[in-house]
Amino acid sequence: MLALAVLAEEPRRFNQIKRQLEGVTQRVLTRTLRRLERNGMVTRTVLPTSPVGVQYELTPLGRSLQQPFAGLYAWTVSHADEIVDRQREFDARGQAIEG
Amino acid sequence: MLALAVLAEEPRRFNQIKRQLEGVTQRVLTRTLRRLERNGMVTRTVLPTSPVGVQYELTPLGRSLQQPFAGLYAWTVSHADEIVDRQREFDARGQAIEG
Repeated sequence: MLALAVLAEEPRRFNQIKRQLEGVTQRVLTRTLRRLERNGMVTRTVLPTSPVGVQYELTPLGRSLQQPFAGLYAWTVSHADEIVDRQREFDARGQAIEG
Repeated sequence: MLALAVLAEEPRRFNQIKRQLEGVTQRVLTRTLRRLERNGMVTRTVLPTSPVGVQYELTPLGRSLQQPFAGLYAWTVSHADEIVDRQREFDARGQAIEG
């Protein structure tokens, strides 16, 4: 999903996407982009450069996912603190029982 | 996410949820409900029945996720056919190259 967000701004090359998705591994990003391409969300274009470059671009289908995804992303951001609090309480209860 | 949708109607016991989520394994559902409980999305109540029953219920936090999730779910349903078409094309291209 985050790869789609990166491509929402403009078409990008593999390493440009990788740099923007801090911490993503080469292998995970390769697999993610391949799955997005297979699902018709992005197109993959081999550029006639030397060395050869590969550019990824959102398709209309991929772009149409932006709005529902933005809703989920906004929810996650606005509830992140509350979730972390619930996790701390849950873990503390777990330790109290094991204690 | 689908476990949340099942609980949106009313609180339910483990096996009731399992029956509604066709094909989900005991292990996956147990882990999913535990993660939802840890994130504060559901509460888990041990019922004083014999044998002991466990009931899961949406919290206000869990219920607040329904609307953004419904948007994503609706997008998925309305684009499912198009995605399957793109997948077939992608796979056919893959075989043509390997062929």
